Parts: sequence; C-alpha cells; structure tokens
Amino acid sequence: MKRILIIGIGAGDPDHLTLQAVKAIARTDVFFVLDKGEAKHDLVQLRHDLVDAHARPPYRIVEAGDPERDRTTPDYAPAVEDWRSRRADVCERFIRDELAEGQTGAFLVWGDPGLYDSTLAIVEEIRQRGSVHFEHEVIPGVSSVSALTARHRVGLTRVARPVHVTTGRRLAEEGPSADDVVVMLDAHCAFADLGADFDIYWGAYVGTPDEILVAGPVPEVADRIRELRAEARARKGWIMDTYLLRRVSR
Amino acid sequence: MKRILIIGIGAGDPDHLTLQAVKAIARTDVFFVLDKGEAKHDLVQLRHDLVDAHARPPYRIVEAGDPERDRTTPDYAPAVEDWRSRRADVCERFIRDELAEGQTGAFLVWGDPGLYDSTLAIVEEIRQRGSVHFEHEVIPGVSSVSALTARHRVGLTRVARPVHVTTGRRLAEEGPSADDVVVMLDAHCAFADLGADFDIYWGAYVGTPDEILVAGPVPEVADRIRELRAEARARKGWIMDTYLLRRVSR
Repeated sequence: MKRILIIGIGAGDPDHLTLQAVKAIARTDVFFVLDKGEAKHDLVQLRHDLVDAHARPPYRIVEAGDPERDRTTPDYAPAVEDWRSRRADVCERFIRDELAEGQTGAFLVWGDPGLYDSTLAIVEEIRQRGSVHFEHEVIPGVSSVSALTARHRVGLTRVARPVHVTTGRRLAEEGPSADDVVVMLDAHCAFADLGADFDIYWGAYVGTPDEILVAGPVPEVADRIRELRAEARARKGWIMDTYLLRRVSR
Repeated sequence: MKRILIIGIGAGDPDHLTLQAVKAIARTDVFFVLDKGEAKHDLVQLRHDLVDAHARPPYRIVEAGDPERDRTTPDYAPAVEDWRSRRADVCERFIRDELAEGQTGAFLVWGDPGLYDSTLAIVEEIRQRGSVHFEHEVIPGVSSVSALTARHRVGLTRVARPVHVTTGRRLAEEGPSADDVVVMLDAHCAFADLGADFDIYWGAYVGTPDEILVAGPVPEVADRIRELRAEARARKGWIMDTYLLRRVSR
C-alpha cells in the first residue's frame, strides 16, 4: 500500500514544527511540491530548509507547476473548485507515477491542514476517483490563527463566547458576525470601515523574520495597517496576513 | 526581570509538542501547576512526563491547589471570572515568591493557549494589578480543534465559507449559527436534536491512547456518542471532547 502524509508545518517559524511532524518528515520517501513560481520564493525556501533539516536520505522532492487559478471571475467558490480539480490531476499523477508500493509520500502544508487549505480536499477527491489506492494520515499543525494570537499575547476566545473565522470577502459583505471574528484571505482591508468599538490584532508574515504586528482600535490603526501592508506586499511580492477583530466597550 | 512563558503543549499527544515548546521548556527554571485533584490524573501525569522529557536540570515544579469554581450558579461567565481572579491570586504568589529576578517561569497549557483557556487572562490580570513585574511570551500549540479535524482527516473550513467556534451552552440556546460549527465544553450533548442535514465529527481524548472518534449523520450516531461519552466519563472520571458539526446536502 502507498501511504500519503498531509503534514501541517506551522505558520512560518521553523520551530512551529511539532515532534510528530518531524517524525513524519523523517519517514517520508517522496515530498510532493506544487510550485507557485517565484513570488512566494521565501516560503519555498523555508519548506526546503525544513526538509533539509529533518528528512532522512534517501528521499526525493518532486515538483510540478501549480495550475493557475482563474482570478478574473467574480465567482470565487466555483473558480476555487475548478482549480482544486486541476491540482488533484497533478497530485494524482504524483501518487501514481512517483511513489512505489510501500513508499510514503508527503504534502507539507503551511499552518494547520484543516484551515483554508485545499490539500485535504484534493487528496479526498483523488481517493474518490479510485484510480490510485493509498492510505492517508493528517498531522495537525500550529495554525496561523494560533500564531497570530500568541504573538499578540491575546486570547482567541473570551469566556463562554463564540469566535467566528471568516474571509475578507464575507466580512466586506456581511460585517462582523460576532464580537470576536478572525479574518483570513483579506486582500482589501475589509476591516477599515469599522468603528472605535472594535480593536484589531493584525499580523503579517507571523513567525518569520519579516513579521509585522499592529494592534489597537480600528480607526486609530487602520491607515497604518493599510500602508504597512501595501509597502510589504510591494517589497516582497506577496503577503500572508490575518487578523482578529474584537468588539470592546470603552 | 522575571520572565513568564505560557506554553501551548498540544492536545494530548506528547508529539504535538512543537520544537519551540521543547526549547521553551528547556529554558524554564520553575514550572507552575494548578492541581485539579485526582480526577484528571492522566493529564497531570502526561504534563509531568513532558517536563521529565524536555526540561533541563536544575528546575523546580511548584504546585498549588486550583481554587474551586462555583458550579452551582446558572450564571456561567461571572462564575468563571470570579474563579479566574482567585486563580490569579495563586499565580501572582507563584511569580512573586517562587521566581527569582532573572529566572523564567512557565505555565504549560493544553492545546493552544488562545482557545478557551484562562491562563492568558490570568497573566494579564496579574500584570495589570502591578504588584509583580515580569515579561511574558506565548508559545502557540496544536489546538484541540486541529487535532480533532486531523484525526477525522476532514477540513475545518470549506472553500470561502466561515466556521464558528462556540460552546455547548450556546449551541443548546441558539442552535447552529453556521453550516460549520465547532462545539467545545459541551457536557450535555447539545447536538443530539439536530437533524440529518448535519454530519458530526466527534472526538474524545483526541491524540491519547484513550482516543474515541465517531463520525456520521447526527441522527445515526447521536445515541452511540452519548453512550460512549457516558461510559468513558464514568470509567476515567473526566472527559475532554469536542466536535465539528457540518451541514450537508444529501
């Protein structure tokens, strides 16, 4: 039987790696990488560094170009699902052609594989197609949400209260749906119009040497976050940021 | 300056520990433990095992009885806040009396310190009282939510959709507030009345040798979860469980 590991590698700090992930990397024969091109070069390098540090020879790294997502359509979900199917085609070939029976292949996933990442769904789609057979296992990781709140030294939840995790797109459409809301994948600073009854805890490249953290009442820090975000994105060519909104009584 | 580390140690599997947490434990002089009595003895033992495995002598473990929470009042949040203040009294004494200037003290927190845990709020309350001075740092951990979804090999989020994290109490009062809801701290199986449009992914003692996992449409598995939960709780004297509810179209 072939074995596939989906390994959460934490949110950017190499020391976010769990002992379970270290052991999983050590028993991997083939690492599968969908290459996003040069833009996120730091992340590609960091992932290679993790493999160098923890993999046990002989091992192989197999790379393929990541299919392009259609970013022109306003219909986000179908575009992502189509993209996912084309990525599943690539990953199906990885498992069929690059992995021998009895070998272990691994996908290394930033943060936790459960949180806004498509690898689990891709592997499930391949499994359901039924053309290649394998066992699979998921190794949880430190999520970007945990990394963010840890760096701000703030709780994600308050006593007996819920927290909502959502996307920038939804925040723009619906506003904050709870007193505590984590927003991910927000390219347009959808928080900017919120009033002084919300604090924001924002972070970019959390856990890496480029980390930027800003916290405060939204009206006081929104412009600064927008500027820092635009500047960093221009300088590095990519950005990975997230934030917690918290309604407060002053 | 005294230094306090709040270290997330993962959701029950000793290998959930991150390299960052291993290093943090290794530089700790004094570990602070609020003893919950015999009921959660396995957890106390597991925490001791982690310290044994990763701490560097000389170090000390300082224990104190955890103040009792008033479980008779229906007013949950004030009871928890009162409890937290009394725990802050104990922890303030820990930091004042048991830690010398220049030393590092640590609290080891199950899962991720941001998620329904009071340690961050306790440390913040002590800091604001101003009677002892210290720096503090938070080390994120693998949350019980990430551990749950990893073991079920299922995503926490679906494409472009939110996930809500809430308590059993709130689920009982409000029902599911989204198509994907994680429920924690549910002593009364508040999911049991949901219909066949919800799948549940339930887990107890996730990541430990006692782990129990059940998944399926709620009406098909609710009784089994209730029975397993009652039996395990009676046998072990405590239970730690959580679940993901997912609305599906069949």
